[in-house]
Amino acid sequence: MLLSGGLDSTTAAAWAKAEGHDLVAVSFDYGQRHKKELTRAKQVAKALGLRSHHVLKVPLGQLGSSALTDKAIAVPRAPRSEKIGQRIPSTYVPARNTVFLSLALAVAEVEGATALVIGANALDYSGYPDCRPEFLQAFETMANLATKAGIEGQGVQVLAPLLRLSKRDIVLLGNRLQAPLGLTWSCYRGGAHPCGTCESCVLRAKGFAEAGVPDPALRPAPKTKRAARAGP
Amino acid sequence: MLLSGGLDSTTAAAWAKAEGHDLVAVSFDYGQRHKKELTRAKQVAKALGLRSHHVLKVPLGQLGSSALTDKAIAVPRAPRSEKIGQRIPSTYVPARNTVFLSLALAVAEVEGATALVIGANALDYSGYPDCRPEFLQAFETMANLATKAGIEGQGVQVLAPLLRLSKRDIVLLGNRLQAPLGLTWSCYRGGAHPCGTCESCVLRAKGFAEAGVPDPALRPAPKTKRAARAGP
Repeated sequence: MLLSGGLDSTTAAAWAKAEGHDLVAVSFDYGQRHKKELTRAKQVAKALGLRSHHVLKVPLGQLGSSALTDKAIAVPRAPRSEKIGQRIPSTYVPARNTVFLSLALAVAEVEGATALVIGANALDYSGYPDCRPEFLQAFETMANLATKAGIEGQGVQVLAPLLRLSKRDIVLLGNRLQAPLGLTWSCYRGGAHPCGTCESCVLRAKGFAEAGVPDPALRPAPKTKRAARAGP
Repeated sequence: MLLSGGLDSTTAAAWAKAEGHDLVAVSFDYGQRHKKELTRAKQVAKALGLRSHHVLKVPLGQLGSSALTDKAIAVPRAPRSEKIGQRIPSTYVPARNTVFLSLALAVAEVEGATALVIGANALDYSGYPDCRPEFLQAFETMANLATKAGIEGQGVQVLAPLLRLSKRDIVLLGNRLQAPLGLTWSCYRGGAHPCGTCESCVLRAKGFAEAGVPDPALRPAPKTKRAARAGP
């Protein structure tokens, strides 16, 4: 399964685990703006007790042309909520999910896995073409023609359990499954704290607000603070 | 275009150039058994005067499970000629063309290219699933759903000019187009000279023999040898 360390992939991982899958996580060091999500992905994989976790280096960053891989392009502020997803923003990374799923397909074939799990969502999302159901369906068709496992073996399914859920429903599902949402990182900027203004922060905040659940990743680490306050 | 430095991709490149395409070559350092083909790819790109040449690092080697990426697995001798392509051999690299085409798709989108060119051949070949027409067709369909260029722009075509040619016809085409076949490297083993016994060497030799053309990559560097023999 693809694990970015964000809200969606962490919830998708918790879902797949609850469904009884034995999970191998794959994360990508692709030249993204910050490595915070990779640290979080490792913590999430550990918290969920996944079987193994590959971190693969991929040369998307050197191609540039995205605000997420080229520091010369600023991360944009989110537009008004109802405008999100109507145009493909500058945070789009060319062919990113295609490249990620292709490498996950290679891992799956080597590991003997029969499914690729991805936290893609096509409802409360940024309009990236490679998060849409028609893309994922076409990828699955292609994958089963591409590999020895597809021709001679059981083949591979693409599972996208969040595809048609709202961000609210993703938060509720993650909460119900006790996914370690407090460990997740969504902010595109990668500062000390989530910026609250990029599209990823705004979509996440909307989800938690509509679910009526506080975002556990935003709470200050309570014990340390309290201990400090309670000190002499 | 995907350029491995072998006979097929070099002929496909010469074809695409003759068709008037402005070509960006992409080669992959994927943990293959030897780097000889990458050196040859660079020479071929230069000889053909291609616009640019990306060499991208891809972590397929660390997954192992192929004789081409895992030195613990021996490169097999080719079976009898008529048996070649009937079973997928141990030189199969899981999801290789899917990963290569996906990264080429990212390059294409960044460069504004409207086609991916691949030297895949499904006639005199090793039976790799990701060289077959149905795979390439499915990849093209997927690619046009995956990218901003597919949704908002001109989209991308997958061109595989050698797909239905025999190895003989590939040699004849390469010769006619004056492709730099003398620079190409096909042998899986990567020794000082082609081994002549691996499947790739056997298929290549069959092609040149049936075309009635000497393989320019096999000719000994004539001047040095003759000079040596002519010496006192």
